[in-house]
Amino acid sequence: MTANNQSSFNPGKGTGEPVGVAVLGMGTVGTDVIRLMSENAEHFTHRIGGPLELKGVAVSDLSKERPGVDRDLLTDDARSLITRDDVDVVVEVIGGIDYPRELVLAALNAGKSVVTANKALVAAHADELAEAADAAGVDLYFEAAVAAAIPVVGMLRRSLAGDQINRIFGIVNGTTNYILDAMTSTGADYDDALAEATRLGYAEADPTADVEGHDAASKAAIMASLGFHTRVKFDDVHCEGITQITADDIEAAKKAGYVIKLLAICERITDSVGDESVSARVHPTLIPEAHPLASVNESYNAIYVDAEAAGSLMFYGNGAGGAPTASAVLGDLVGAARNKVHGGRAPGENTYAELPLTPFGDVPTRYHIDMSVVDRAGVLADLSARFSRKGISLRTVRQEEQERHSHARLIVVTHQARESDLQDIVKELSELDDVQEITSVIRLDG
Amino acid sequence: MTANNQSSFNPGKGTGEPVGVAVLGMGTVGTDVIRLMSENAEHFTHRIGGPLELKGVAVSDLSKERPGVDRDLLTDDARSLITRDDVDVVVEVIGGIDYPRELVLAALNAGKSVVTANKALVAAHADELAEAADAAGVDLYFEAAVAAAIPVVGMLRRSLAGDQINRIFGIVNGTTNYILDAMTSTGADYDDALAEATRLGYAEADPTADVEGHDAASKAAIMASLGFHTRVKFDDVHCEGITQITADDIEAAKKAGYVIKLLAICERITDSVGDESVSARVHPTLIPEAHPLASVNESYNAIYVDAEAAGSLMFYGNGAGGAPTASAVLGDLVGAARNKVHGGRAPGENTYAELPLTPFGDVPTRYHIDMSVVDRAGVLADLSARFSRKGISLRTVRQEEQERHSHARLIVVTHQARESDLQDIVKELSELDDVQEITSVIRLDG
Repeated sequence: MTANNQSSFNPGKGTGEPVGVAVLGMGTVGTDVIRLMSENAEHFTHRIGGPLELKGVAVSDLSKERPGVDRDLLTDDARSLITRDDVDVVVEVIGGIDYPRELVLAALNAGKSVVTANKALVAAHADELAEAADAAGVDLYFEAAVAAAIPVVGMLRRSLAGDQINRIFGIVNGTTNYILDAMTSTGADYDDALAEATRLGYAEADPTADVEGHDAASKAAIMASLGFHTRVKFDDVHCEGITQITADDIEAAKKAGYVIKLLAICERITDSVGDESVSARVHPTLIPEAHPLASVNESYNAIYVDAEAAGSLMFYGNGAGGAPTASAVLGDLVGAARNKVHGGRAPGENTYAELPLTPFGDVPTRYHIDMSVVDRAGVLADLSARFSRKGISLRTVRQEEQERHSHARLIVVTHQARESDLQDIVKELSELDDVQEITSVIRLDG
Repeated sequence: MTANNQSSFNPGKGTGEPVGVAVLGMGTVGTDVIRLMSENAEHFTHRIGGPLELKGVAVSDLSKERPGVDRDLLTDDARSLITRDDVDVVVEVIGGIDYPRELVLAALNAGKSVVTANKALVAAHADELAEAADAAGVDLYFEAAVAAAIPVVGMLRRSLAGDQINRIFGIVNGTTNYILDAMTSTGADYDDALAEATRLGYAEADPTADVEGHDAASKAAIMASLGFHTRVKFDDVHCEGITQITADDIEAAKKAGYVIKLLAICERITDSVGDESVSARVHPTLIPEAHPLASVNESYNAIYVDAEAAGSLMFYGNGAGGAPTASAVLGDLVGAARNKVHGGRAPGENTYAELPLTPFGDVPTRYHIDMSVVDRAGVLADLSARFSRKGISLRTVRQEEQERHSHARLIVVTHQARESDLQDIVKELSELDDVQEITSVIRLDG
């Protein structure tokens, strides 16, 4: 079942009638949403065809000072607020999964359109939410769930609706990019860079979701689902974070002309008999210094989309923060409100293609392997032969003397090969007497 | 009157019914549109909720071979084709202004939604076309009119509908960017670079529209209209092309750390008493080598959008060519067809803000002035005083000896000042005995 196949639609309230809005959550994003709704009220009336009216704001703690919002609008009873007759659109900016899931479903079931910024919720439960939206004939918008105001969702849902998307990849997490950028520019180790990011507000007190790649994986799931018209959930995304990246890795990458970035990569993969599958993954990745993604610094995001007809498109901007996220939420709110006034529905879920997921072992990747080997004649030839026997060809092999003259440092960059073959060769190498240590294994792209 | 204020809407054909499409024009873009419609037919059916059916293709010369399209579908009677009952959406990819204007208006008046790639038409006649679309309650789409598949129109119309846009600027013409890039990388003069661009198909036989900046000006008019919710027409855009740029200019720019690009700049300008106006202009512009726009090479396009809440966003891609333009047309076609099936209308024209146009003389700009002056004590002080008396402060002044020792080369970069004051000072300088020649005057940005 897809949203596009449902034919019931809301005939609209008619021009001039107010559109009632409930906001759930008044953290950084919610506060900016409410502020901008009020500051730009007149503009929204023109753009929508009727005024937006804030009907209520659900918060967990009613005793807290909430400057910028009428006290009477505050409630701690979100469940009642979302089903009120005068509420047409519900904005969910709470965060978390279970509680917002319950509220969003209740809102959709009550015939309210929903705008959410909640990537974790969408990545985990998009199917259920889309089904509820379809059944009620209302809209579910989530532009802010991916890279804030960089309009990735709109582009995948609408602008490229006439094209075939083959690859979506890029930097979609500002915290990890800030940390990796700091490590690259200052030589700091991971722990120090993280501490600095936390001090400056780029990392949260509990940075797990960011540094383990979970946040990026949610965004990868959403982008892959939209781009490939196939359900890809958070759990389907292969995910590796940046906690294992060392100052040595960064230094070695720099020396070889690379930068390490945490990339989300969504790919349509065609196998040797022409069957298609889709892969979504998040992992630290070496990219050449000259690649535009290499110069995406601090907490900025950048996303490449490769489409059959459009070619390669790139989108860059601030992918997080209160105001940029509020911009995306408000863009969605204008869209949802327009549909309430004029009738019609936004393109929703459309997972008709139902492509299988590529097993991670079958994904074609490239490895950069840094190891310490015994420095004797014949070692290089032996190791090369092992790669060759697995069908993995090498792009570059660089040998460096080490302080211990009995050992040499060997840096191998492979051509593209099956991920599992690459994993196998690493395992095989690690078991050899000639290989003292495999210092790092990082994938390469770009 | 704005499109968003009209409340009549099409209740839709219902899921599963075919959407009839007429294509006007079968040049490069039309051919790709027809090919991709056929190749991706099944996908479009899913994405729309019903199949697209090509009902006819209007061409000027019926005798020409048209591979890829059924002969029976060809007609040289566009006027009859567009009003046929079984046609729901008309795709206009003819080019020119008067003839497509007549056809597009007739199609809209007949209740057909229209998708056009025609920037000249939209930039000259958007008001009249929007009015016709509103009156008939149908859609007018033109994503392909600006930078092909880079989704600038969709972003301005929808994604940033909840934000206030302050500035839109970038490289929106591939031909001139190719020529300037060739001049920069090879040192070629303008005529040679143009000849090479023509030979390689980057410039048309008559390159006027591109090299004089008209094509970029049409795009600037469209972007400014959407971004500032204010009617900006082609004639409102101050437009200077690249035909006066010399190899010497490029060389001098390079020496000073700049690159020359043809920029389209759309700006919301707030004067000293807080009144807003909008400026749209196209002219050769010096930008610092480190600015991302400086490394947009060959025929690529890149557009920056600065919005109040979203911050600075950048979009990059191939801004021309058959397939990328067809991608944008097909994205629009899917949208228009969805609305035919499900009801609802796309956000249309919305020029409610009706901001005045900034007179070009009042626009704040910066100048890079290259001149040859008499080499005697006191000249620099005298010239500096003249800038100062006009209230123009200087950012850098660089003096170089020339082969004729009686003269020195003086390169002045100003801070921002009123365009007319800058024009005045250039005129004043040119009339001085101490100034032998003003070699070049180029604006600066970024």
